[in-house]
Amino acid sequence: IQKIELTIDKINKGDYEHYMLKEIHEQPTSIGDTFRGRIAIDKSKIFLGGITDVMPKLTQAKRIIIAACGTSWHAAMVGEYLFEEFARLPVEVEYASEFRYRNPVITPDDVLIAISQSGETADTLAAIKMAKEKGATILGICNVVGSSIPRETDAGVYTHAGPEIGVASTKAFTSQVTVLAMMAFMLGRKRGSMYDQLYKELIQELTLVPEKIVSILKSESYIKEIAEKYKDATNSLYLGRGYLFPVALEGALKLKEISYIHAEGYPAAEMKHGPIALIDENMPVFVLATKDKSYEKIVSNIQEVKARSGKVIAIVTEGDETIKQLADHVIEVPDSHEAIAPLLTVVPLQIISYYIAVMRGCNVDQPRNLAKSVTVE
Amino acid sequence: IQKIELTIDKINKGDYEHYMLKEIHEQPTSIGDTFRGRIAIDKSKIFLGGITDVMPKLTQAKRIIIAACGTSWHAAMVGEYLFEEFARLPVEVEYASEFRYRNPVITPDDVLIAISQSGETADTLAAIKMAKEKGATILGICNVVGSSIPRETDAGVYTHAGPEIGVASTKAFTSQVTVLAMMAFMLGRKRGSMYDQLYKELIQELTLVPEKIVSILKSESYIKEIAEKYKDATNSLYLGRGYLFPVALEGALKLKEISYIHAEGYPAAEMKHGPIALIDENMPVFVLATKDKSYEKIVSNIQEVKARSGKVIAIVTEGDETIKQLADHVIEVPDSHEAIAPLLTVVPLQIISYYIAVMRGCNVDQPRNLAKSVTVE
Repeated sequence: IQKIELTIDKINKGDYEHYMLKEIHEQPTSIGDTFRGRIAIDKSKIFLGGITDVMPKLTQAKRIIIAACGTSWHAAMVGEYLFEEFARLPVEVEYASEFRYRNPVITPDDVLIAISQSGETADTLAAIKMAKEKGATILGICNVVGSSIPRETDAGVYTHAGPEIGVASTKAFTSQVTVLAMMAFMLGRKRGSMYDQLYKELIQELTLVPEKIVSILKSESYIKEIAEKYKDATNSLYLGRGYLFPVALEGALKLKEISYIHAEGYPAAEMKHGPIALIDENMPVFVLATKDKSYEKIVSNIQEVKARSGKVIAIVTEGDETIKQLADHVIEVPDSHEAIAPLLTVVPLQIISYYIAVMRGCNVDQPRNLAKSVTVE
Repeated sequence: IQKIELTIDKINKGDYEHYMLKEIHEQPTSIGDTFRGRIAIDKSKIFLGGITDVMPKLTQAKRIIIAACGTSWHAAMVGEYLFEEFARLPVEVEYASEFRYRNPVITPDDVLIAISQSGETADTLAAIKMAKEKGATILGICNVVGSSIPRETDAGVYTHAGPEIGVASTKAFTSQVTVLAMMAFMLGRKRGSMYDQLYKELIQELTLVPEKIVSILKSESYIKEIAEKYKDATNSLYLGRGYLFPVALEGALKLKEISYIHAEGYPAAEMKHGPIALIDENMPVFVLATKDKSYEKIVSNIQEVKARSGKVIAIVTEGDETIKQLADHVIEVPDSHEAIAPLLTVVPLQIISYYIAVMRGCNVDQPRNLAKSVTVE
């Protein structure tokens, strides 16, 4: 018998109209809960107790495979960029459903990380079992304590984001990315692929995320006004590069799930290999365009969209003047290291999807056809 | 000074209204041209002269990275399944544009395969240069002889599909997949990860592809009737699993490029993690559902779509009775090994996109906003 540790206080909607809005607003707290007790007070190091035993294995790994579905798969893609940049380890991100059926090459040298909010996702669980049979070390990143996936893994890190009730995942995503960032930084340090100064700078950056999200949430009514303008769209595109490409996918998924608008995410550079044909004056294009190493490229992508009369809603770094001149709307987020930007830039996209869905009269917390945890294959 | 070896005969439209239709019909010939002289007369072995010198390197490789853009990226994904299944080598498929900007982990043990019809794709060329600096062995799979990419690579295999004029790639895709299949089978044999009997069976299967495509092309007028029914769609989904997931992506891209309908491809199992919310009675859903190891799963995906009143157009194996009862339309393709199925199943999707675009009055050979080879970054 397991004790269910939920109090009414933790699962009611409080002053919010929907769980999803409540959970968006909880992110400063939920991300704080994710790193609490795992980052030293003096911000000099990260300590993830759940994976201490497997650190030698992780440090020696030749390759990391991350298996997930849906929103967790987007977090996994951010993880790929993080592990490759900071731990210098090749990472393969897999749809759990595809991975399990294709007899993939897995050896005892591999580490498989499974990501699932509920810890019950059927395809992810099956992927774990297959990788385990082939001798890989299995780690889990889950939210629900004591769920099936954590019970099947060799080690893992809980996200501690608190119960997520809205079907469209929000705070679970940012907590998953937070865990992946902590793992990548810690591993980078252990593998010697990261200077101590950068390590400390990134820890510092992580701890600043909650207050930065608080500041983004202050733009809520402005973002709601933008939502009003695009609530009748039938289609939209989301573009990003590097760390923000998975955020483009996640932004599109949010809109699709709860507003039933056909939204699609793309790496911005791929636009000219096909999707650009879709762009006309009816097409809102959300562009993740904060200041990072691909900033100039993304500015020219915005110009390409504008040249075809598309509407551009750009997520930019505070104070950006260049894009303000080009885009139809800009939503500012505080400056950060680019590896941290997914945690900030996803928030305005969650808010915009939420309001568009509400304005369209959709059942935000329980969208049609969708279940919170997909326990069927 | 380079001599351009094109004769008028080779580049005019012949009896076809558009280059795209001509190129779709050329596939039995162009695929034949791709394997001509590379498969022994007795079908006992594959010989790819262009990569003989690097075979020791390929046989010893720890990992293959395939970099490409657009349609070539879809061929790359089929390649991933082929190399992993038959050569038992882990493969990472990368958008060239993403890969080049993110300082990926590449070592001299890695082999990078670049795929590009034109051989001039700017992002792919840049990815090659970066991987070369890090010491990787570089192979090319290109169509245009003497183009920039083949000049930058250590070795490679030309597709010999003949000039492709239509902006939406058709015969280049099937020739790329044919080359990848030959490489994977040859490598599987050399690495000892494939029995001789299976090797010969798959060579035999490859050589039968041209006549099987001839038989698919006989359904053209029937496929045109289906196109008529969905020509006014504003959105559509394409679903596939395993080898046919990249075909779903490619089918969606074809429709998007030339008809400006927002089409999106998904691995079928991911549908329930979001896109299923989009499905209603106005949504045509194209399902790749030939008989392979995930047949039963795809049948249940079709049932899920029908339960939400979506319209299902299924590409099935000749004689399939189960799906005929469930789907709104079925298009039959001849039976084949599942590794060969992408070469067959993509053809009806090319035809349907072509006719939908023609019926919508679109400029099929030169869609708005798109260029044949993307030589800018």
